[in-house]
Amino acid sequence: MTSAKGYAAQNPTTNLAPWNFERREVGPLDVQFDIQYCGVCHSDLHQIRDEWFPGIFPMVPGHEIVGKVVKVGDKVKKFKPGDLAAVGCLVDSCRTCDNCKVGLEQYCLNGGVGTYNAKGKDGVPTYGGYSNTIVVHEDFVLTISPKLSLPAVAPLLCAGITTYSPLRHWKVGKGHKLGVLGLGGLGHMAVKFGVAFGAEVTVLSTSPSKEHDAKKLGAHKFVVTTDKQQAKNVKGYFDFILDTVSAPHDFRFYLSLLKTNGTHIMVGIPPEPNQVPAFSIIGGRKSLAGSSIGGLPETQEMLDYCAEHNIVSDIELIDIKDITKAYERMVKGDVRYRFVIDMATL
Amino acid sequence: MTSAKGYAAQNPTTNLAPWNFERREVGPLDVQFDIQYCGVCHSDLHQIRDEWFPGIFPMVPGHEIVGKVVKVGDKVKKFKPGDLAAVGCLVDSCRTCDNCKVGLEQYCLNGGVGTYNAKGKDGVPTYGGYSNTIVVHEDFVLTISPKLSLPAVAPLLCAGITTYSPLRHWKVGKGHKLGVLGLGGLGHMAVKFGVAFGAEVTVLSTSPSKEHDAKKLGAHKFVVTTDKQQAKNVKGYFDFILDTVSAPHDFRFYLSLLKTNGTHIMVGIPPEPNQVPAFSIIGGRKSLAGSSIGGLPETQEMLDYCAEHNIVSDIELIDIKDITKAYERMVKGDVRYRFVIDMATL
Repeated sequence: MTSAKGYAAQNPTTNLAPWNFERREVGPLDVQFDIQYCGVCHSDLHQIRDEWFPGIFPMVPGHEIVGKVVKVGDKVKKFKPGDLAAVGCLVDSCRTCDNCKVGLEQYCLNGGVGTYNAKGKDGVPTYGGYSNTIVVHEDFVLTISPKLSLPAVAPLLCAGITTYSPLRHWKVGKGHKLGVLGLGGLGHMAVKFGVAFGAEVTVLSTSPSKEHDAKKLGAHKFVVTTDKQQAKNVKGYFDFILDTVSAPHDFRFYLSLLKTNGTHIMVGIPPEPNQVPAFSIIGGRKSLAGSSIGGLPETQEMLDYCAEHNIVSDIELIDIKDITKAYERMVKGDVRYRFVIDMATL
Repeated sequence: MTSAKGYAAQNPTTNLAPWNFERREVGPLDVQFDIQYCGVCHSDLHQIRDEWFPGIFPMVPGHEIVGKVVKVGDKVKKFKPGDLAAVGCLVDSCRTCDNCKVGLEQYCLNGGVGTYNAKGKDGVPTYGGYSNTIVVHEDFVLTISPKLSLPAVAPLLCAGITTYSPLRHWKVGKGHKLGVLGLGGLGHMAVKFGVAFGAEVTVLSTSPSKEHDAKKLGAHKFVVTTDKQQAKNVKGYFDFILDTVSAPHDFRFYLSLLKTNGTHIMVGIPPEPNQVPAFSIIGGRKSLAGSSIGGLPETQEMLDYCAEHNIVSDIELIDIKDITKAYERMVKGDVRYRFVIDMATL
C-alpha cells in the first residue's frame, strides 16, 4: 500500500481536517501522481454534507486534480515519471456497456466509479484530490499541456468539461444566442467556451455587480434577471440557456426567455425537483435537458482545445488550512471564479 | 351576418345547451362550410370549466371540425361549394412573425387565434365546431380526401396532428423504441403514427384492460406501469416517450425509462407544474420536451399522409344531446378512443 495524507470529513457535520490513509499499490496499468493542485467544486460541499445521497465516510473530496507523475505500472504506455497528469470526476467505469464503449463513461449504465465518495471495483472507497498523491488506472488519467498555468487547469476537470460537453453536444456556436445562467465556477467557463465557439453570449445573473467581470470574460451582453425591463427585452431571445445554478429557480421565467425550439440545459443540480409548467415547454416546442460532466475522450479533447486556445479557469489559490473559510465564501458566491488548493500547503 | 346554432356553455359551471349565435358574413377570402362532424377533445372540457385560463363566455367548444363547403368568397381559390373541408385548432394567426412565415402558426409569436375561446383580429369571439356552420379564412381551412370515413377524420384535426407533429419533428422512425404514455384520444393516434413510421411502439398504461386494444391498434408491446417487474424490464429502454397524459404523473419514473440521450415529449397538459428532479435528466443527458398541435402546412401533410396510408381515428359517434354524458365518460377514460358528434343531431 501507499501512504497518503489529505483532508477528510469524518462525518457530515464536522469540518474537513487532516487525515492519513492508504492508496492501493501501483498496479501494472496504474499511474501514481503527486497532486500539486486541486479545485474546489460546490459538489464537494454537497457531498461532505450528505446533501445528495448517503455518503461514504471518512470522505476526502476533490475531483479537479492535477500533478506530476511519480510512478507507473509496467504496462502503462501513456505516462512516464515527470509527466503532468490530471484526473477529473471519474476513476473507473464498467468499460463494457454501450455508453462506455463509445466514450460516454459519465453515463456508464453500470455506474461509473467517482473519484471520491464511491467504491472501486475492489470494494474499497475512493478518496479524492484534497490529498498529496493518487493512484488511478491510466485510462482515467488525462494528459495536460505544460503551456497552461497548472493551478488554473485544475477546474477544467469538472467546471470545464461540465460546460464544454453540452455546448459541443448541442452544437452551440456561430449564429446562436446563448444565455449563461449564473456566473460562478461553471458559469465563467461556459462564457469562455461559448465565446470561443462563436456564439453570442449573454450572462443572466441576479448580481448587477458581476457585469464588469462578465464582459471581461468575453460575454457580449449582461442581463440582470430581477430587472423587469431587462428581463422583458430577452423574452424569446435565446436558442440555448446553459443553467449552472444549483439553487431552486423559476423555470417558468427562464423557459420564457427561449426561442421556439430552444433548449434549456441544466448542469447545476438544485436539491428539490424543478417545477416545470407544461405550458412553458409545449408553447414553443422547448426542451429542458440535462448534461453531466463528460466522458474521457471528450475531457481530453477539451483539455487539448484549452491548450490550443489558451483557455483556463480564473482562480483564487488557497492554503488547504483555509478550506472551511473557502466553503463559506463559495456558498455566498464570493469567489471569482474557482478556489484551487495549493497542495504544497498540506 | 350568418345565423348559426350550436351548443354553448354560458358560464364555467353549467352544462352545454343549445344556443343561437351569428357568424360573420363570408368575406372575399372566406370559406363557409356546414359542419357534419366534430370531435370531442379533453381540452373542450378544460376550457368550458375554466381550468386553464379565464374563458370567453358563452363558449361553443370544438376544434376537430369536418364538413362540406356551402359558400366561398370571390377570391377563394382552394375551395368550391360541395368540397369537403376541415378546420383544426386555429382559425387565424398574425401571419407575419418568424414562426408564421415558416408554417409554424401554432407557435405564432403574436398569439394565434384559437377556433374557439379566443378573439379574432376583429375583436369578435370565435365559436367552435359544436355548431352547424362555420366561416373561416381559406388559409386556415384544410382539404380532406373523400377516401376516408368522414367522422373518423375529425379527430385527426387535433388528436392526430398533436401526435404526428412531434413524431415528425424528432424524426421518430425505424430503429427507435417509442413509448406511448396513455392510451386515449391522443395516445391511440400516437400508436398508429408510430407504427406507420416504423418505430417499435410500446404502450405504457396503468390499465391492464387496454392491452388487447393496444395490440389491435398495432402496438408491439404493452407495459402495465404499476407492475414493478414490467416497469423494471423497460428501465433505460426508450429513445422517445410521447406523453399524452394530462393528469399529474411521476416524471422521475418515466424519465428513468429513457435511454441515454432519450427525449420525453409532452403533449398532454397537466394542470400543476411537473416535478422534474435534476438528476433525472442530468444522469443520461435526457430531455423533457413539449409540442403543441401543428402548423397549417404540417396539418395538411398529416391529412394527406392519412389518406395515403388509410389512417383514421377510432371513434364513437354520439348525438349532441348526449354531450354531458360523453364528457363524464371521457373523464373516466371510458371512450375508445374519441367521441365524435354527429352534427345532424343538432
